[in-house]
Amino acid sequence: MSEKKRRVPNPNPNSNPKKKVPKAQSHAQSLRSQLQSDASLLASLEKLRLETQQSLLSSSAPRTLSDLNLPSACREVSDRDVSAVQSSIERAVLGMARSILAGRGFSFDVPSRASSNQMYVPELDRIVLRDKCSSRPFANLSTVRKATITAKVLTLIYGVLQRNIHVTKRDLFYTDVKLFQDQSQSDAVLDDVSCMLGCTRSSLHVVASEKGVVVGRVIFTDDGDRIDCTKMGIGGKAIPPNIDRVGNLESDALFILLVEKDAAFMRLAEDRFYNRFPCIIVTAKGQPDVATRLFLRKMKIELKLPVLALVDSDPYGLKILSVYMCGSKNMSYDSSNLTTPDIKWLGVRPSDLDKYQIPEQCRLPMTDQDVKAGKDLLEEDFVKRNKGWVKELEIMVKTRHKAEIQALSSFGFQYLTEVYLPLKLQQKDWL
Amino acid sequence: MSEKKRRVPNPNPNSNPKKKVPKAQSHAQSLRSQLQSDASLLASLEKLRLETQQSLLSSSAPRTLSDLNLPSACREVSDRDVSAVQSSIERAVLGMARSILAGRGFSFDVPSRASSNQMYVPELDRIVLRDKCSSRPFANLSTVRKATITAKVLTLIYGVLQRNIHVTKRDLFYTDVKLFQDQSQSDAVLDDVSCMLGCTRSSLHVVASEKGVVVGRVIFTDDGDRIDCTKMGIGGKAIPPNIDRVGNLESDALFILLVEKDAAFMRLAEDRFYNRFPCIIVTAKGQPDVATRLFLRKMKIELKLPVLALVDSDPYGLKILSVYMCGSKNMSYDSSNLTTPDIKWLGVRPSDLDKYQIPEQCRLPMTDQDVKAGKDLLEEDFVKRNKGWVKELEIMVKTRHKAEIQALSSFGFQYLTEVYLPLKLQQKDWL
Repeated sequence: MSEKKRRVPNPNPNSNPKKKVPKAQSHAQSLRSQLQSDASLLASLEKLRLETQQSLLSSSAPRTLSDLNLPSACREVSDRDVSAVQSSIERAVLGMARSILAGRGFSFDVPSRASSNQMYVPELDRIVLRDKCSSRPFANLSTVRKATITAKVLTLIYGVLQRNIHVTKRDLFYTDVKLFQDQSQSDAVLDDVSCMLGCTRSSLHVVASEKGVVVGRVIFTDDGDRIDCTKMGIGGKAIPPNIDRVGNLESDALFILLVEKDAAFMRLAEDRFYNRFPCIIVTAKGQPDVATRLFLRKMKIELKLPVLALVDSDPYGLKILSVYMCGSKNMSYDSSNLTTPDIKWLGVRPSDLDKYQIPEQCRLPMTDQDVKAGKDLLEEDFVKRNKGWVKELEIMVKTRHKAEIQALSSFGFQYLTEVYLPLKLQQKDWL
Repeated sequence: MSEKKRRVPNPNPNSNPKKKVPKAQSHAQSLRSQLQSDASLLASLEKLRLETQQSLLSSSAPRTLSDLNLPSACREVSDRDVSAVQSSIERAVLGMARSILAGRGFSFDVPSRASSNQMYVPELDRIVLRDKCSSRPFANLSTVRKATITAKVLTLIYGVLQRNIHVTKRDLFYTDVKLFQDQSQSDAVLDDVSCMLGCTRSSLHVVASEKGVVVGRVIFTDDGDRIDCTKMGIGGKAIPPNIDRVGNLESDALFILLVEKDAAFMRLAEDRFYNRFPCIIVTAKGQPDVATRLFLRKMKIELKLPVLALVDSDPYGLKILSVYMCGSKNMSYDSSNLTTPDIKWLGVRPSDLDKYQIPEQCRLPMTDQDVKAGKDLLEEDFVKRNKGWVKELEIMVKTRHKAEIQALSSFGFQYLTEVYLPLKLQQKDWL
């Protein structure tokens, strides 16, 4: 950087022109001057989109357990429509009736969801369940309660499907507090039933509350209403809790921008970032909820778009990415429906802290617990498979520095949308 | 109730017809049979809407501090447009320049926000600030830091207004971490600046993240985009963080239904409750955030609609109502812009537990802390003013029972939308 450039008057209205321009600020300006025309940038994004499309097409359908010749050893659930789930329940009940008539009594075969029955399948990049089952006979003191609860949950789900409505776990619990005693008991059996029937929890019409929002270049229907997310103002559209009522996705976006925090989402929405760079912007406002994960997956698969992620530069940001990509352990039986593989880590990455000269005082020291979390991540399969990610994590653990997305505000409130993200896209700086 | 009615076959598909119908279930059915036609119900709601309109018109403009002849003793802030706030900042800076030139030095006069400087004004039904100020001179070791931070925040706000963008408190903090050291320091000074300039925090274009959602019979613009909330599917529209970009409200609703929890919101949205009973349904998903409070107030004032609240039957549900109605203590200087007076308590009320025969096992025992919170509420002015509320709270504290909205699911998942709420509206059962 030339001495001359450093003396360029600071266009930032917040800074005092008489004060010597700090080094970091001047670096920020020089980065701004590196930005090329939007057209060249869009061309490279178009290329990324085509690559994503091709990779999705060449792998044909997303890989399944049965492609791997280990179906009998593992178990996954899939999305099923109302009548298919109802038939499954009817078959299960008929089977039990026959068993009773044959004098063998009434019992459920329930897949085990214990961690000893879980396994990571590298080919799928997902955690799945092994096929261990346990019997839950009615005529046994130690299982009679659970067998009764299982029968009750099956009855309730059948009723919900018949009315074609959606309910929450809490609603289920309240239908028979005397029997369930505690919500954790009906919740656990609900997961059992999902595994037993081989269908997702959303297929059972039991939904979690939504907290995600979406804005940008996507149109879809929510329960029949056509939603155009370029016309959702700054607040955006709340992501619907019931993914089975979402359909007819259309988009001219080049990529999906997955954002960890709502503050960054708000900045992007207010600056209508998606008008300059055609994209769809999504956030779950922190820890991803089921509805947002389902929605992201649906968009990626149906629209065949690359997903770029903007998270804090700390172990927690990466853990959030891992939940989107590989699922969480307690819902491993549902991992194939909830996960979005191949998310690119755009930023904020540990190497960005120096590259973008984030001021020392905006970097936060990592606690011992943070460092431990970082080291634990280095042992995770989904990190190890990506050398770039390993390198970044090693920088994080070595420097013991973390930074939030908002640390970029130190160069001006709109630095994120005007310089940082455009430059990242221009340089194809994702991993 | 006649013996004959009790023998009516149970239409609930979830229950076993051979089993004796439990008393509570049979009571639920008898309540269902009390429902009149929707037309008669709508007429009574129309009457409520007219009453609300008249009471809003007869009180002319909402009462202000100056109506009460105590303006010098109290201080409130109001919504101001960008240029008005900029002028205030310019005047403040000019005043300081003159003070320096006159040899009196550089100092801020900052209103005290301590609880000793707060007071409840019964005529307004709001907490306001008294007019105690403290001086914050630059040339004093104990105040030089705070004076510098105040000057910096004024500069930042001026820049934000000039660009006509919105930022979060966290963004502000990151612009100068070295100076602010800790976000609580920039946050506190931001509140000071709001009081000093006499304008709301939203007028300063500093926004909090939104978490509320809205669905139903209202159309508004969000940053120029026209949003029709009857066409927002089940997910609803996320309430925008920046209320100053919300405008052009239109509605044919008869009332606003304020819901504490998102599970109840989802049930109402999926059943399209607003199509049967024209209303606008709003929730902040728990503790109300600033954006939802501003949005509710704007709707109530501009559309002149009654607000009916559906909260859990526990002290916490009532506390949430109090935040909507009277504000929270730490933002008392902004109470007139954030509060929505005259919210009717529709349910779930302590007396409903017996009236609707909520089964014993769906009622939760109150902890000692709950009971104390209930007793504390009985001492609050906003409760004392409403005899019906006092009576309800006394029932709660005496029976030591609380219940969630979802306890109504014990009579069927759609009991809330098909029986409980219609019956409440029919009986004008709000306080």
